[in-house]
Amino acid sequence: MYRIVLDVMGGDYAPDAILKGAKLALSAFADLSLILTGPKDVLKNFPTSDRVEFVYTEEWIRMDEAPGEALKKKKGATIFKGLSILKEGKAQAFVSAGNSGAVVAGSIFILGRLTKVRRPAIATMLPTLKDPMVLIDAGANVDSKAYDLYQFGLMASLFLETIWGRKSPKVALLSIGEETGKGNQLVKETHNLFKTSHLNYYGNIEGKAIFKGDVDIVVCDGFIGNICLKLSEGLAETILEMLKNEVKKSYLYLFGMYLSKGALQAFKKKTDWREYGGAPLLGVKGNVIIAHGKSDPYAIKNAIRQALHFSKINLSEKLEKAILENALEEEKIGD
Amino acid sequence: MYRIVLDVMGGDYAPDAILKGAKLALSAFADLSLILTGPKDVLKNFPTSDRVEFVYTEEWIRMDEAPGEALKKKKGATIFKGLSILKEGKAQAFVSAGNSGAVVAGSIFILGRLTKVRRPAIATMLPTLKDPMVLIDAGANVDSKAYDLYQFGLMASLFLETIWGRKSPKVALLSIGEETGKGNQLVKETHNLFKTSHLNYYGNIEGKAIFKGDVDIVVCDGFIGNICLKLSEGLAETILEMLKNEVKKSYLYLFGMYLSKGALQAFKKKTDWREYGGAPLLGVKGNVIIAHGKSDPYAIKNAIRQALHFSKINLSEKLEKAILENALEEEKIGD
Repeated sequence: MYRIVLDVMGGDYAPDAILKGAKLALSAFADLSLILTGPKDVLKNFPTSDRVEFVYTEEWIRMDEAPGEALKKKKGATIFKGLSILKEGKAQAFVSAGNSGAVVAGSIFILGRLTKVRRPAIATMLPTLKDPMVLIDAGANVDSKAYDLYQFGLMASLFLETIWGRKSPKVALLSIGEETGKGNQLVKETHNLFKTSHLNYYGNIEGKAIFKGDVDIVVCDGFIGNICLKLSEGLAETILEMLKNEVKKSYLYLFGMYLSKGALQAFKKKTDWREYGGAPLLGVKGNVIIAHGKSDPYAIKNAIRQALHFSKINLSEKLEKAILENALEEEKIGD
Repeated sequence: MYRIVLDVMGGDYAPDAILKGAKLALSAFADLSLILTGPKDVLKNFPTSDRVEFVYTEEWIRMDEAPGEALKKKKGATIFKGLSILKEGKAQAFVSAGNSGAVVAGSIFILGRLTKVRRPAIATMLPTLKDPMVLIDAGANVDSKAYDLYQFGLMASLFLETIWGRKSPKVALLSIGEETGKGNQLVKETHNLFKTSHLNYYGNIEGKAIFKGDVDIVVCDGFIGNICLKLSEGLAETILEMLKNEVKKSYLYLFGMYLSKGALQAFKKKTDWREYGGAPLLGVKGNVIIAHGKSDPYAIKNAIRQALHFSKINLSEKLEKAILENALEEEKIGD
């Protein structure tokens, strides 16, 4: 039996979507037990069982709250409560669709960073024309240094190798041209670190090539990573909406689209972020999964599925071990 | 009669696509005359007329060449030759689909910057759910300072107002959260400049909201702008390819898509970058249009159409005048 802590107050559709997602997960995964953190009133109708535990708190963090402030003033908030339970070893993973800045800050403060890791980073899986790939950092840090980007690449590489069994994953650096020397100051410095590392370094990758699937990992600062992620979501939505607007103009188009519905559904499933279920925060002492702010019950269920998987394989411990084995190189490269 | 200089050796499909585009433009626009810069051999079969002039040079810059190097070693390259013709006042605009770094460096070196402008920037039009909007900077600069970003916003604002008649355009700053205070150091500093300016400042905008069309201008550093631009192109292509792969799996889907073909075509036309025809480089003394590297004849024709439009309204002069009228504020805000 694995125990996962779930923040029931995090996310745009909390608490309803989270509670429904928790129920879905409990019926789907027999080896799952859940600790739900939230207000008494919110949890009072949740079906009790020996696989469910409630930890009550009347505080939670809004989606737009400043993480630093929250950490000072709302020590009892669901996110921090949940992370403390993880810290105490009463659970194997923590899941929240709430304020991701607060999850990152709370994880660093409460759980601490893995030995040798300077900045934890969010590793998001993205669909491509081939296999899904990892974008790191998807928003945990802004104004990263070259050494941080190198560590993001290292962590994601170990993550894909250890967790998903992808052999010697190709690590690329997001830039504005494929040629060496193209990019801003940060990219140029990071390029030199990757070149002298033992990682399977692909070189620079341009924005247009990300979704082709030629690399396994795309490394960038969290400011850019987060913009890319949200831009991609927004653009995909806009494209579908623009198409819909055109289709609506004629019954013939509508009928044609109706016939090809199956293809559209298969496409949607392949590109649906909800399938991936959330992004791990790599580099902290514990398995932390940040689910999408817009998570519905299905997305929450999948985030819990992922937390369960990470718990079974001890993601955080495996990652620390792998990072320590790379310590020699790190010290060689170090700041 | 307006005279436009065209670099026939710039672009992935040069010189063929450029020459064909030149012919299309000559038949489409009666008040256009062209100066073509390129090797004698390439130009020898181009139909002569009193609306066409050739300026021969045997040098040109490859798409992947370092702009700084090229500026030193290939002074006679088509791009620099073309910009010199513009500088001498023998033409009203310059168009190239070639190495955009070389066009930017050459423009600054040969034409010079507008009074008060510190860094020229590329202003790219992008389709949205509502009206097209301007993304600035799309790649002329990396590692911009806050004051540069402010000037990008100012130039794009004056550009939309003076050239397209859009009243008091909404200027937004690309960041990772809508709330004030969210973003990296650069965004925070720039936010303060915009807030105290007279521009119609919208505040931060997130990546997902860009294509909704709620703002007229999105300001960012050229490193991020270029990544966003290429990511959008790559993603749009990938989405269509993934859809195609699904549709191919059944005759029914194929038939359905065939029926809705008209809608797909209308959508494609609305989102086709070739319709916009190229992006002006704002902030240099002259009308410079950077066409897409993948320009085909149709895109080149549209880039020339735009160059013609900018020539008629004296874009560069109008912009300089408008910037000077804002000088007081600039000095107040200045570095």
